[in-house]
Amino acid sequence: MSEQLRVAIVGSTGYGGVELVRLLASHPQAKVTSVISSSSAGTPFSDGFPHLQHIREELLDDVDPALIRTKADVVFLATPAGVAAKITPAFLQAGLKVIDLSGDYRLKSPALYEEWYKKPAAEEPYLSEAVFGLAEIYGERVKGAALISNPGCYPTATLLGLVPAIKAGFIDPASIIIDAKSGVSGAGRGVSLGTHYSELNENFKAYKLNQHQHIPEIEMVLSDVAEKPVVTTFSTHLVPMTRGIMSTMYANIVGERTTEQFIASYKEFYADRQFVRIRPAGLLPATKEVWGSNYCDIGFAVDTRTNRVTIVSVIDNLVKGAAGQAIQNMNLMMGWDESLGLQFVPAYP
Amino acid sequence: MSEQLRVAIVGSTGYGGVELVRLLASHPQAKVTSVISSSSAGTPFSDGFPHLQHIREELLDDVDPALIRTKADVVFLATPAGVAAKITPAFLQAGLKVIDLSGDYRLKSPALYEEWYKKPAAEEPYLSEAVFGLAEIYGERVKGAALISNPGCYPTATLLGLVPAIKAGFIDPASIIIDAKSGVSGAGRGVSLGTHYSELNENFKAYKLNQHQHIPEIEMVLSDVAEKPVVTTFSTHLVPMTRGIMSTMYANIVGERTTEQFIASYKEFYADRQFVRIRPAGLLPATKEVWGSNYCDIGFAVDTRTNRVTIVSVIDNLVKGAAGQAIQNMNLMMGWDESLGLQFVPAYP
Amino acid sequence: MSEQLRVAIVGSTGYGGVELVRLLASHPQAKVTSVISSSSAGTPFSDGFPHLQHIREELLDDVDPALIRTKADVVFLATPAGVAAKITPAFLQAGLKVIDLSGDYRLKSPALYEEWYKKPAAEEPYLSEAVFGLAEIYGERVKGAALISNPGCYPTATLLGLVPAIKAGFIDPASIIIDAKSGVSGAGRGVSLGTHYSELNENFKAYKLNQHQHIPEIEMVLSDVAEKPVVTTFSTHLVPMTRGIMSTMYANIVGERTTEQFIASYKEFYADRQFVRIRPAGLLPATKEVWGSNYCDIGFAVDTRTNRVTIVSVIDNLVKGAAGQAIQNMNLMMGWDESLGLQFVPAYP
Amino acid sequence: MSEQLRVAIVGSTGYGGVELVRLLASHPQAKVTSVISSSSAGTPFSDGFPHLQHIREELLDDVDPALIRTKADVVFLATPAGVAAKITPAFLQAGLKVIDLSGDYRLKSPALYEEWYKKPAAEEPYLSEAVFGLAEIYGERVKGAALISNPGCYPTATLLGLVPAIKAGFIDPASIIIDAKSGVSGAGRGVSLGTHYSELNENFKAYKLNQHQHIPEIEMVLSDVAEKPVVTTFSTHLVPMTRGIMSTMYANIVGERTTEQFIASYKEFYADRQFVRIRPAGLLPATKEVWGSNYCDIGFAVDTRTNRVTIVSVIDNLVKGAAGQAIQNMNLMMGWDESLGLQFVPAYP
Repeated sequence: MSEQLRVAIVGSTGYGGVELVRLLASHPQAKVTSVISSSSAGTPFSDGFPHLQHIREELLDDVDPALIRTKADVVFLATPAGVAAKITPAFLQAGLKVIDLSGDYRLKSPALYEEWYKKPAAEEPYLSEAVFGLAEIYGERVKGAALISNPGCYPTATLLGLVPAIKAGFIDPASIIIDAKSGVSGAGRGVSLGTHYSELNENFKAYKLNQHQHIPEIEMVLSDVAEKPVVTTFSTHLVPMTRGIMSTMYANIVGERTTEQFIASYKEFYADRQFVRIRPAGLLPATKEVWGSNYCDIGFAVDTRTNRVTIVSVIDNLVKGAAGQAIQNMNLMMGWDESLGLQFVPAYP
Repeated sequence: MSEQLRVAIVGSTGYGGVELVRLLASHPQAKVTSVISSSSAGTPFSDGFPHLQHIREELLDDVDPALIRTKADVVFLATPAGVAAKITPAFLQAGLKVIDLSGDYRLKSPALYEEWYKKPAAEEPYLSEAVFGLAEIYGERVKGAALISNPGCYPTATLLGLVPAIKAGFIDPASIIIDAKSGVSGAGRGVSLGTHYSELNENFKAYKLNQHQHIPEIEMVLSDVAEKPVVTTFSTHLVPMTRGIMSTMYANIVGERTTEQFIASYKEFYADRQFVRIRPAGLLPATKEVWGSNYCDIGFAVDTRTNRVTIVSVIDNLVKGAAGQAIQNMNLMMGWDESLGLQFVPAYP
Repeated sequence: MSEQLRVAIVGSTGYGGVELVRLLASHPQAKVTSVISSSSAGTPFSDGFPHLQHIREELLDDVDPALIRTKADVVFLATPAGVAAKITPAFLQAGLKVIDLSGDYRLKSPALYEEWYKKPAAEEPYLSEAVFGLAEIYGERVKGAALISNPGCYPTATLLGLVPAIKAGFIDPASIIIDAKSGVSGAGRGVSLGTHYSELNENFKAYKLNQHQHIPEIEMVLSDVAEKPVVTTFSTHLVPMTRGIMSTMYANIVGERTTEQFIASYKEFYADRQFVRIRPAGLLPATKEVWGSNYCDIGFAVDTRTNRVTIVSVIDNLVKGAAGQAIQNMNLMMGWDESLGLQFVPAYP
Repeated sequence: MSEQLRVAIVGSTGYGGVELVRLLASHPQAKVTSVISSSSAGTPFSDGFPHLQHIREELLDDVDPALIRTKADVVFLATPAGVAAKITPAFLQAGLKVIDLSGDYRLKSPALYEEWYKKPAAEEPYLSEAVFGLAEIYGERVKGAALISNPGCYPTATLLGLVPAIKAGFIDPASIIIDAKSGVSGAGRGVSLGTHYSELNENFKAYKLNQHQHIPEIEMVLSDVAEKPVVTTFSTHLVPMTRGIMSTMYANIVGERTTEQFIASYKEFYADRQFVRIRPAGLLPATKEVWGSNYCDIGFAVDTRTNRVTIVSVIDNLVKGAAGQAIQNMNLMMGWDESLGLQFVPAYP
């Protein structure tokens, strides 16, 4: 290929941004040409990240759409909630494509956003134009879009685990209960007592029961797929590890279905997708089996005593749950194979 | 007090046995007079446990009921499944009181035991005579009993979290879903690839969905309390930490109940019990908040959107889930205050 | 005993303070009557520490020596560097005995303190009067003292491992190299990127090489024991765990000495002390073997090829390295057995 | 490029073998054509490694040099000590190039091998022909060789940290003390109580002081570089993490040297090498800064008080300490750029 896509990253000093840098370093058709941080502009990128010494020594750029347009074609926004809503219009107007990793463009209802995020919603027409980039479900819409809203980490693991069963009519959407667990990197790089090492090590805790801002995002897609309003019970827990999300999901089965039927149905649903792997009966995925990779692995256990199914779905929250899926969306936007530059083997052990 | 109760421990080389030694070391009215291991008899106890150097230097005894009767009044069995069923009769006939930490005397139905444990069930009349020592629920029956069956770790956390709501008629027993998580010490001291450090560190995995041998034990008590047969969905997960269990439990609410009503009801139910602590609304317990102690901490979140309650219950699996509750049962058997020698402050951080 | 010693703790919201509360809860002759925090005075103690729910529900007191004198006989200061120097005189003048867990009274030279701590040194005559409470070495001086300076965590592990060899003339003090490793709780409860969970988990790092403020404290005692000035090479590392310190120490042997001779010499040196345990030849201590206890375990490896000895010493940094040794000093001050209320079996696993 | 180098891996069920598979998956000029395990031949590779589902589904081959020669050009041996010595001659005779990751061909003296490994040494002429593949030091000899002995993990971190200082005459080789720490994956995939999760988590321990089989390998190279016999003090410790080695090294400085002089000297020494990164003064590397990559990062602290230098060197033990360096050697053997397929950005956090 003659030319590479030029990529800028805003929010390069958080975990999402630095993971984009790691993954894009081996992308065959894209290269990072600008790393941007409003808080650290003008300082060397590797100052805050010694692991990038010799790899990315350039100075951090400031948030300046006109300047960035001269250096890049696509910009990833890996910024805290509320920032993308403010800066996206200028990037789009400058002619850049935008992939937003935050929650700012995920909820189509401004009221819902403001209720769950406690911030002003993004403005129209951008909010309506943004495509929700859950690649395996809405990949067709991503192609050619100018503004992609990259899904949250919990929604990605959860929705990939639930959508096929709902589409197949195997489960009752009203009965869904989601018990999700995440490694600590999902909380970001900002320090707090809640993410202080001595408080979390050798500890397991529940948080934000029924209050997590990913709930409306999950319900938006479930309702879309079920073609009727779906509300869910959604719990989040913090695991003493850095990376990985597991969603353990429970639902009442409609009629009678075996584990093998679930497996067959999901294999068919994801037949053309490279990043979803369905475990054989009797095996359930563990988070480490996707560590560092863009895979989502899914397993099933049907309980005939209760006629419920338990679905277990795992991802690396920083890859498939953030930077990896964002690159997958970039590939789709560009009309490339979605797996380009993303075929990492999980790091094990 | 003039004399101390003399205590023997069979299975002193596993985690349950060695935790009994730790806890009993500070009991004011009991002392360990014999530590027993059939596999290591005749070798110094501290050979396998350098942390007991200078503390317990004696040689391990063999399993010999007549000899042990000369040294002890009560014997704790911290042995693998199937062992207690074989050796308990001889201990009882020798005049010892027995507290069994294994599953051998928990299930009253021999058929159920053999289905879930794949071993021959314990014999009568011992099986019928054994009292299920979930102290906060069946404490009255423990007083004066000669054979106590100490509950499993998952059932302890789960049942203490569910029983009051069922008794109060707040939840529908048929709707209960239990998502349980445990530290790795629950798997014992026997080595396997599944508990190999490099496989579990920075990993979170599900196992034995709907197949864990603690399921019939949980359903036995739930059915007893609900006064009708109850079946549940029960999932177990392994957390990369050593100690701690969390049961996250879901149920449909009967009528309308607030979080505050659950709290008030549980506080009343456990008003006389020292080891159950109910969190105020908005707070959920973390496993580290009970680390090394005999507490079971419980919190609630009612979701009005789905009319479900989420109940979170945590224990230290080796204390309230094993050795601590066994000592609590010993206290009750002897007619003592149940908290004698057990008032440890959790180790934090 | 008719009456209990009344104890106050300043700095109850840090790890040292909260560990004092845990350990003193089972002390037979002392009870905590006031927990003090200037930053959180007036709020319930258990607000910041849910693990203390039902155990310590009282409100936090302010730092008020006159008031505290009405409630307590002894005050522990578990405060950041610089605080004890300011508040100790008032406590002493009010008639309280003071045990300071910070570095403020450890260095007898004000200039040295100011060089290493970058703060004003404590004033005379208090600085001179303060007894350095390394109990196994200076225990005699502690008896009856009014102001005790409790040693640092690294110095405790290091000095207990080195002093006997120097006193015996077995090693050349000029050759000592100390490679120390600590769990993260040693950094305290204050949040920072350096103690952020995702940064430290699955990571091992060196810090403050030759610059740690515990260096002059170590050299002060080594020089005292060697009866000549001793300078050392001292490295500190952070281990991804919460509690535990290991000092691995290297020195050139004077003459020829076997591992067994080191062991015999140390056993004799610590013959009357309950908290130092010497490992037999071929065994080296691990930090978990003292977890939660006041023990310091020491092992040796003599290398005849290089004629050097390697000495490995481990403690729990929050117990023998802080709160436990402080209570040991309280016991000595009061003329009690030094192990009173401190005979915890290490928590294992 | 028209054709890819065909690679076989013996010992594919250990951590070294499976890491070769991960790294080679993205090599542009080599592809794995056979994965071999004598113990599991005929079973699907991904049976033991669910993370390889959909990635490497083929059956494991048996150890059959003639068959393997039809499928491969180069064979990596990631086998336990003693195996490579037996099977290497047949592979070489079949016309394959061999890169051995075990210790079997590292020590040129059979007597030394038998003393430290307690097994029969490899036979001549193979032992003499094998090139010790410490790429940054002996890379020239690797080019064109048929049999490479890949260095051990500890020697790699240690020697890269010491060789330039010895060559420059900056330190006294007789004074070297090496305090090394490793993540648990270095102990391999074989289960034992010593690598049981509950025993190692929240634990730090020393092992094999002065007895590790990597000592003669380190001294062989140090003596070669110093041009006189060098003996060292070498300690190993186990860190509760999966990957990463740190060697903290101490030596007496010859004359006077500043930290900056060490840095300048090392930068010059490694000027042409891509995988060694020298930290600026005041910064020391942490193991996570090289996690998953082939980098070795080195930092320095000169202490003018003792005239000693402390050198800190970190690697990922499974990459630069095993599979990564083996691929680097393959690249050199083939006359390719040594970094081909190895330019991974460290995974952070």
